[in-house]
Amino acid sequence: MYLEKINSPEDVKKLSIDEMKELSFEIRKALLNRLSEKGGHVGPNLGVVELTIALHYVFNSPKDKMVYDISHQSYVHKILTGRKEGFTNLEKYKTISGYSNPDESEHDFFKLGHTSTSISLACGLAKARDLKGDKDNIIAIIGDGSLSGGEAYEGLNNAAEAGTNMIIIVNDNEMSIAENYGGLYKNLRELRESEGKCECNFFKAMGLDYYYIKDGHNLDELISTLSKVKDIDHPVVVHVHTIKGKGFEVAEKNKEQWHWGSPFEIETGKPRVANTNTNTYNNLTGEYLLNAMKEDKNVVAITAGTPTVIGFNKERREIAGKQFVDVGIAEEHAVALASGIAANGGTPVYGVNSTFLQRTYDQLSQDLCINNNPATILVYSASVYGMNDVTHIGLFDIGLMSNIPNMVYLAPAFKEEYFKMLNWAMTQKEHPVAIRVPAMGVIESGVEDTTDYSILNKYQVTKEGKEVAIIALGDFYQLGEKVAMKLSKENNIEATLVNPKFITGIDEELLENLKKEHKLVITLEDGILEGGFGEKISRFYGPSNIKVLNYGIKKEILDRYIPDELMKKNRLTDIQIVEDIIKIIK
Amino acid sequence: MYLEKINSPEDVKKLSIDEMKELSFEIRKALLNRLSEKGGHVGPNLGVVELTIALHYVFNSPKDKMVYDISHQSYVHKILTGRKEGFTNLEKYKTISGYSNPDESEHDFFKLGHTSTSISLACGLAKARDLKGDKDNIIAIIGDGSLSGGEAYEGLNNAAEAGTNMIIIVNDNEMSIAENYGGLYKNLRELRESEGKCECNFFKAMGLDYYYIKDGHNLDELISTLSKVKDIDHPVVVHVHTIKGKGFEVAEKNKEQWHWGSPFEIETGKPRVANTNTNTYNNLTGEYLLNAMKEDKNVVAITAGTPTVIGFNKERREIAGKQFVDVGIAEEHAVALASGIAANGGTPVYGVNSTFLQRTYDQLSQDLCINNNPATILVYSASVYGMNDVTHIGLFDIGLMSNIPNMVYLAPAFKEEYFKMLNWAMTQKEHPVAIRVPAMGVIESGVEDTTDYSILNKYQVTKEGKEVAIIALGDFYQLGEKVAMKLSKENNIEATLVNPKFITGIDEELLENLKKEHKLVITLEDGILEGGFGEKISRFYGPSNIKVLNYGIKKEILDRYIPDELMKKNRLTDIQIVEDIIKIIK
Repeated sequence: MYLEKINSPEDVKKLSIDEMKELSFEIRKALLNRLSEKGGHVGPNLGVVELTIALHYVFNSPKDKMVYDISHQSYVHKILTGRKEGFTNLEKYKTISGYSNPDESEHDFFKLGHTSTSISLACGLAKARDLKGDKDNIIAIIGDGSLSGGEAYEGLNNAAEAGTNMIIIVNDNEMSIAENYGGLYKNLRELRESEGKCECNFFKAMGLDYYYIKDGHNLDELISTLSKVKDIDHPVVVHVHTIKGKGFEVAEKNKEQWHWGSPFEIETGKPRVANTNTNTYNNLTGEYLLNAMKEDKNVVAITAGTPTVIGFNKERREIAGKQFVDVGIAEEHAVALASGIAANGGTPVYGVNSTFLQRTYDQLSQDLCINNNPATILVYSASVYGMNDVTHIGLFDIGLMSNIPNMVYLAPAFKEEYFKMLNWAMTQKEHPVAIRVPAMGVIESGVEDTTDYSILNKYQVTKEGKEVAIIALGDFYQLGEKVAMKLSKENNIEATLVNPKFITGIDEELLENLKKEHKLVITLEDGILEGGFGEKISRFYGPSNIKVLNYGIKKEILDRYIPDELMKKNRLTDIQIVEDIIKIIK
Repeated sequence: MYLEKINSPEDVKKLSIDEMKELSFEIRKALLNRLSEKGGHVGPNLGVVELTIALHYVFNSPKDKMVYDISHQSYVHKILTGRKEGFTNLEKYKTISGYSNPDESEHDFFKLGHTSTSISLACGLAKARDLKGDKDNIIAIIGDGSLSGGEAYEGLNNAAEAGTNMIIIVNDNEMSIAENYGGLYKNLRELRESEGKCECNFFKAMGLDYYYIKDGHNLDELISTLSKVKDIDHPVVVHVHTIKGKGFEVAEKNKEQWHWGSPFEIETGKPRVANTNTNTYNNLTGEYLLNAMKEDKNVVAITAGTPTVIGFNKERREIAGKQFVDVGIAEEHAVALASGIAANGGTPVYGVNSTFLQRTYDQLSQDLCINNNPATILVYSASVYGMNDVTHIGLFDIGLMSNIPNMVYLAPAFKEEYFKMLNWAMTQKEHPVAIRVPAMGVIESGVEDTTDYSILNKYQVTKEGKEVAIIALGDFYQLGEKVAMKLSKENNIEATLVNPKFITGIDEELLENLKKEHKLVITLEDGILEGGFGEKISRFYGPSNIKVLNYGIKKEILDRYIPDELMKKNRLTDIQIVEDIIKIIK
């Protein structure tokens, strides 16, 4: 009734409080409409309906500029800024992404998706505004979970230093993806319990002004306080208490599970496709580590706010007790923590998605590798077939990690290999080891892996041949098998097939030997070519007569791509690869 | 008198307070002895003499474990832990490094040199201790300047969460390298002024216990408070007020200049070699930017705690006013800030040393490049001839940055090029641009640079030839010239010489053309080979008959190397390169 008339924030300003309450109800329906069909972030968006309505009622977007941290909770903002059809109209779902996007709307200022960046980015908008002499409001909206990240802290520190208008909305729903971890959260609780009045106030200690909103679903309270800070001439935090999943009972009661969901039935909350697959590397790793913990009290698993990535659901976390550490969304700390644990005799295993590991280059290099401390890092979703939205691409970790001295980065192709490598990584004491977890399902070779991984950089020749050698890394090994088979069947070429296993080093002896009976070496990697594995092989053969073809993903901005199409575009199919090979050797 | 008897912390425990006061005096002499001869961190070490003595008096290193943040202020710790000869004996200076080093002593637990890592690393030591069931004290010593870094915050947050023994000494000397920036520092001042008693306390807000030491040079007060927290069963912050440069008048009075110094005369403080060289890229950039600021109020220069890197001494900072921003030691924020400024119409220029840029991969990729915001980043000390201690190597930035989509990373060889690129970067609005500042002195070509940098990835052929093509990147261009000259003089080969300028892209047309009359292409880069520029050229020529030789630095741990020796080891001299070339083409 009201939603259909909302085409821009101007239309929100025309409503009365009662009408906005009705609008809230309609927005929740629209959210659940899309989320139940398409999946996405459920709890976070349901929790900010009234807050977002109030923000658009009080402020004047896009002159006043809003930056939503991570932006997974910006669906309501999208609905109110001319994009409601992405939520009400089944056919238009794909036109609107799950994160901020300036390509969609002038009301979005950045593409973002990693945590804790909103305040810093907003500081930039504010600085430019101040230099120009403008007077618009700059508003960052950040969840309490995201306050655990170092970049958020740097942002708060600098917002206070800058001293001019900046409104930082802290959306406190007492949750990260799972529960919050960190000393700060005690203070947030004290603030909530004292309704913002306790003397010891983290935000004030950071030099910021401070307001508290007790009921973040009460439009009167929201509008009243936000109006107070509108056009304020200095930085201020508005600390808002909300309920994650508000308005959808099953989401309110199961906050962790309803952070993000696959399509589900609105009436019951049941997933449309039951996700009972336990045969994933995530789950198998969790099982393996829990057993390792029982046998050795010095084994500790680490996560930075994403426990199920490493296979630790609530039940396993409880069993693991002190041997499971969630550092909050603080990947840099997670790596340094792992290094320190290893230095003092512990056996740390840090599990993280490739895209979030990007936060930790310096810690990997300095805290961990310069010290050569034996920590284990498991890198998930590192693949074309991993997450595919622009801010969660998992294709950059090879380039990121493989030029760090002392790092041993392994790429298993099969389940047996993976666990052999994991076992080695956790028992050896000589190297920091990272393992690139295959992302295209759990495939068994059926053969025991007897490799001695302490002998670094020895590639495994799985099929001896001539003319052409295929070096197929990690979860592209199976693609390598297909290419070898096709060459054999259709072109009578018996290619050599190699499972390199080691990303961080060259098997010089093998590569030298291949010169003898081969004309062409091809490399396959599930990652960006630039700075990747294949280029090292090309460099090795540079001064020789051997020709090299590197296959991987060309460096470009990727967003919501279709994996098979991207593979084809990069000639990463057996048909195309064989075509290219034949062209070269014939 | 007392120092000569100190061979381990045990010997410190035998002293009375008066004897320790005398020891303080002798330690200052020893410090100045080394620093005046060898150079190093002056102010920071003079400021922690009494604090370090007290720490070793109260605690039992190495069972109790100390982690010094950055560790540039750990000279006194080294003196007291069996390494005094590195400070008293001129011949032994080289045996002791300027940073923590487990290779030197069991009293050091990590090699480190980047800011804000101590608390996280200490958390790791503590976690392993807890799992083992040990009871030693874990102590992190961190300066107030380092508290601006996100990793320190993540550490504090998690130390509080862990809840077990951890003693965090905050050494508050009211300084970073230059002055401190950030809202937090207001609270630190309130804490100092209220002698630790004010209600609003940042550390307590982070969930930590807290003590304050008013006079960080008073051994009685230090020992008394440290004794209180010894064997404490929960995390605690001991906030100590010290004076940077204490005991050396000229250092106390000129804190910024005496943070780090070249060799000087003890009597006067005057540098032994007057450093009046203003013909550096640092200084020239500062001059250029200050002028740009006067013409355009939207130009803003950014530093993360190292203002003179971008040429902004105190005087220039004062003139620049609001157009110069020091974010404190918070490189991640600096990049995001730059992106936000650019998004709102400003012209940001962030200057930073290569090694510290390592902190910002994710912000470069996500905050800046995915948004394609036109910020400029100037990368200094990016060279074999930059800083050479293990935690400050400037050879990894090419691998780090050049596989990020949308990033335009330029490598000038001459002064004219540098300023042409800088001008283009600051005026264009299409790309985030980084410029790799030459590190081997300012060299003029004498010719105006008329390149249109908006046409990306066009390399410049500076000498047309045949057979051999030399692609010499950035400050190795002059080496390329020498190789070309030698080939011509001694081998009658007129090589093609190319100044590529663009690190982040291939000039496919040129490289294709080179296939015609050349057999061999060589690349020269002042950086690590793995993941670097040359490998992209190798990949391009992989499927062809062209041979490629890549020259750069092989990936390995480097520490206090001699640049010319490292170059030779990597065959980066004209003699060796010509040798290799002749072997291939003859």
